[in-house]
Amino acid sequence: MPNVRLALAQTNPTVGAIASNVANILAVVEEAAKRQADLVVFGEMTVTGYPIEDLATRESFILDAELAVRELAIELKSRNLGEIAVVIGHPSMASAQDQTGWAIAHNTASVLLDGKVIGSYNKHHLPNYSVFDEYRTFVSGDKLLTFEHKGLKFSTVICEDIWQSGGPVSHLGKADTDVALILNGSPFEIDKDDTRLKLVSELAKKHNCAAAYVNLVGGQDDLVFDGDSIVVDSKARMVARLKQFKTDLVCIDIAAKDDLKVSDEHHMTKPNDNWQTWNALVLGLRDYVSKNGFKSVVLGLSGGIDSAICATIAADAIGAENVFGVSMPSNFSSDHSKDDAKDLANRRNMNYQVQPIANLVKGFEDQLQLEGLSVENLQARVRGVILMALSNKEGHLTLTTGNKTELAVGYSTIYGDTVGGYNPLKDVEKTLVWELARWRNAYALSKGEVEPIPQNSIEKAPSAELRPNQVDQDSLPPYDVLDAILDAYVNRRESSDDIVGYGFDQELVNKVLTLVDRSEWKRRQSAIGPKITGMAFGRDRRLPITNKYKG
Amino acid sequence: MPNVRLALAQTNPTVGAIASNVANILAVVEEAAKRQADLVVFGEMTVTGYPIEDLATRESFILDAELAVRELAIELKSRNLGEIAVVIGHPSMASAQDQTGWAIAHNTASVLLDGKVIGSYNKHHLPNYSVFDEYRTFVSGDKLLTFEHKGLKFSTVICEDIWQSGGPVSHLGKADTDVALILNGSPFEIDKDDTRLKLVSELAKKHNCAAAYVNLVGGQDDLVFDGDSIVVDSKARMVARLKQFKTDLVCIDIAAKDDLKVSDEHHMTKPNDNWQTWNALVLGLRDYVSKNGFKSVVLGLSGGIDSAICATIAADAIGAENVFGVSMPSNFSSDHSKDDAKDLANRRNMNYQVQPIANLVKGFEDQLQLEGLSVENLQARVRGVILMALSNKEGHLTLTTGNKTELAVGYSTIYGDTVGGYNPLKDVEKTLVWELARWRNAYALSKGEVEPIPQNSIEKAPSAELRPNQVDQDSLPPYDVLDAILDAYVNRRESSDDIVGYGFDQELVNKVLTLVDRSEWKRRQSAIGPKITGMAFGRDRRLPITNKYKG
Repeated sequence: MPNVRLALAQTNPTVGAIASNVANILAVVEEAAKRQADLVVFGEMTVTGYPIEDLATRESFILDAELAVRELAIELKSRNLGEIAVVIGHPSMASAQDQTGWAIAHNTASVLLDGKVIGSYNKHHLPNYSVFDEYRTFVSGDKLLTFEHKGLKFSTVICEDIWQSGGPVSHLGKADTDVALILNGSPFEIDKDDTRLKLVSELAKKHNCAAAYVNLVGGQDDLVFDGDSIVVDSKARMVARLKQFKTDLVCIDIAAKDDLKVSDEHHMTKPNDNWQTWNALVLGLRDYVSKNGFKSVVLGLSGGIDSAICATIAADAIGAENVFGVSMPSNFSSDHSKDDAKDLANRRNMNYQVQPIANLVKGFEDQLQLEGLSVENLQARVRGVILMALSNKEGHLTLTTGNKTELAVGYSTIYGDTVGGYNPLKDVEKTLVWELARWRNAYALSKGEVEPIPQNSIEKAPSAELRPNQVDQDSLPPYDVLDAILDAYVNRRESSDDIVGYGFDQELVNKVLTLVDRSEWKRRQSAIGPKITGMAFGRDRRLPITNKYKG
Repeated sequence: MPNVRLALAQTNPTVGAIASNVANILAVVEEAAKRQADLVVFGEMTVTGYPIEDLATRESFILDAELAVRELAIELKSRNLGEIAVVIGHPSMASAQDQTGWAIAHNTASVLLDGKVIGSYNKHHLPNYSVFDEYRTFVSGDKLLTFEHKGLKFSTVICEDIWQSGGPVSHLGKADTDVALILNGSPFEIDKDDTRLKLVSELAKKHNCAAAYVNLVGGQDDLVFDGDSIVVDSKARMVARLKQFKTDLVCIDIAAKDDLKVSDEHHMTKPNDNWQTWNALVLGLRDYVSKNGFKSVVLGLSGGIDSAICATIAADAIGAENVFGVSMPSNFSSDHSKDDAKDLANRRNMNYQVQPIANLVKGFEDQLQLEGLSVENLQARVRGVILMALSNKEGHLTLTTGNKTELAVGYSTIYGDTVGGYNPLKDVEKTLVWELARWRNAYALSKGEVEPIPQNSIEKAPSAELRPNQVDQDSLPPYDVLDAILDAYVNRRESSDDIVGYGFDQELVNKVLTLVDRSEWKRRQSAIGPKITGMAFGRDRRLPITNKYKG
């Protein structure tokens, strides 16, 4: 009876950092060897990071990745790790290009053993929806890879292959697969629920094999890979579930496809939705900061909920000592705004300074004879200039803090409160901002810590404070109504008539939809931020700016 | 012997404006009827405009477009135009969705006759490279449509179908096609040369049929459709060539597939490259302005070549009386800068004002204790605030004027000189900026007009004038060298080694490539502008921001 120890390696590669990604693979294989693993499986494109987008169309990049894989095989052997089968993801040159000459590479999983690449599998189903463009960048493969190791048969497939029907995955049973190895780069979406577990379980039952689903972890631009790798046996019983939002390495002893045992301690339950969303936002920001060479962030603190929650996410991600908050009161700023901003910074001991804007604004106002909306926008832009000047002077990444609801209806000043390289709340609608704030405070209390977010920032009526006594609801419907309309229009792509059919006022629906359509040009120039839903602004939703459709 | 009069209708639809696009189709068919046409062929997606991007994934949009087509057929009949066969492009619901549920529609060409839709063809080859994402948004069709009208056989195909091999287009001959009707949405690229004519000619010869290639005309966001529709006979002799960058309607009398005669006067030769590029830039800007409801533009005039050429493009596009130039001198601005800016505005009688920035800059400098690069960026940002304030106050579209070379290496201040909704020079490299300036002046002279661009703006050393005696070549290599390196790296996707192999200095190549990679986050937040090359920044080149690859 075989007894194969399979290690699932949930790693956090950086796109393009081939040498350091490979060094990390080596380190993980060495750790797995210490735990007596016979086989180590990594996620999709572990060698290059994922997604590589149009890097896949650069020949030098593909050749460098292939070379790194061959050198890794040799290095493993030279370190006496040649007997361990190592399964890694990387791009490889396709033998034939597509007709356009654009896609030249496969999205590949290779098996390294005894100093050599003993086999490769090329991803068949290329996702080309949502944030993915893999028809653009990859050539499809069509042959299952099955290999025997220590008496068991393993077959490899990649990510989208199990989300669609047909293709090599349908031959898993015919190939007498004991364990399907599924390499994934599957980004976090709160609405995905447990679809992955469901798919893996169905696959195990259908093809009568165990299945090891290995996902990446880490932030890459607007995506957050959440890990949460899973192993099920051929009877679809879950054997192991790896950590969410953290690198992890777990070993499984496999005697037969229906006899798997985990050899490490670990947790099998997923925490609640708010915990997951919060951790996705924290990891997304942390990795954007570190992978792009920043050490600190600067952001405006208005006393409102959006900046308060962004600062708290930042403090959780990179430490409060690396968060630089700037209060920029105007003549219209209330006392509570200034107090709440200071209170927020003090609760976590963030860096904090006050830069009043009244005199700076007055200079422009007088010179250009501005009034009304121009003055409102002007205040936001003067704040933007201050934040960017501090960023330039001190080397911080600037965070912008507009939530998804604001971004949807364009309730922001472009080149003003929108300045910054990264937006933690880009895909977080306003009602969820409040929910997360309450959750984060309760979580702190449950750990015996001070609530990070001032209660007043959560409870007061939201206001841009760009004119006297202004509140958001002067211009917008209540946020619960607005978010419901936006959910139908943006996330579910429903029509104006459908939405009115739910009981919303026709005029209000028209107004909201018009605001969304008219703001497209602003969204095109907006900072990236972590996708947490099935429909994030950015690559998920590609609409023309010039667009007269109403419906 | 048949004698069919075929009208090629080169129109300029607006994306989403279904009702007005249909009204325009009706007007064009009426005009064609006056000229005794039997058949009128329009471009791809004439009913909705093109490209519709993710509008194709909205069911209400597709249903509205289909309804409009059926109503158009009825309206044509009610106007006694029912005997004219009208071939139009539009999206239609596919009977089966793709597996992801994302793409629900076909990209369709329908034939209207006698009040009905008598047949439809669904595009087979869906372009999913360069700026196109049609695998994402459309379901592929696989059946040629052939119909007889007045004794001749016509078959329809759509755009990409003739750029790739295989698919329904290969059955043109088998279907005894006399005339292939090719509906296109083919954007202008200067490097396309006459590829379209070559493809159409080859198709005619291969399948022994005449071919009518009908393209759209007009600007849509970052694309400019140039028209230039073509008719060839079955011996691949060119019979007609429609105007470039203008709507046009030309009738052809067809006795047999090798016996075609044009019944209108028209020009068969294409003007030179600079004329074409200039007209693409002018049309792109004009349509962005008009289709988005603007009447005027505002831009900073520095006295330099980029702003001079942008202002001239704008004056050609929407009239000098709708161009508002703002000179914003600082303490570092030379006298010639101010003189050249004023000279430029005067030559065309543009609106012109001076807004000095020294006092405004000083306010920030003193409050924030800035020096060095922070102060350079600050000056650009103060100018951005001024332009946006004037835009907000007076309703102008703000133009940003950074050329492709600047955009490539990030030689700009984000939220400073990059502010604006549209950038006429986004895809124009610096060396081409100068070439176009010289060409435009010579063109003016040839028409007996005043040269619009001051000679001094063309000849002086380019400078950002953000510190005393600064010139661009303090930080950058000479522009001819820089553009050559960028052409290899960006446009041709070559490696660092390849580029060094051409004889460029290794250190310089590394520096330029690093500048390009590091500026990705700025480009993501940059304004759109007209694509004129095979590799424009934006949808043509999709690279990660977080990207450590050097090679």
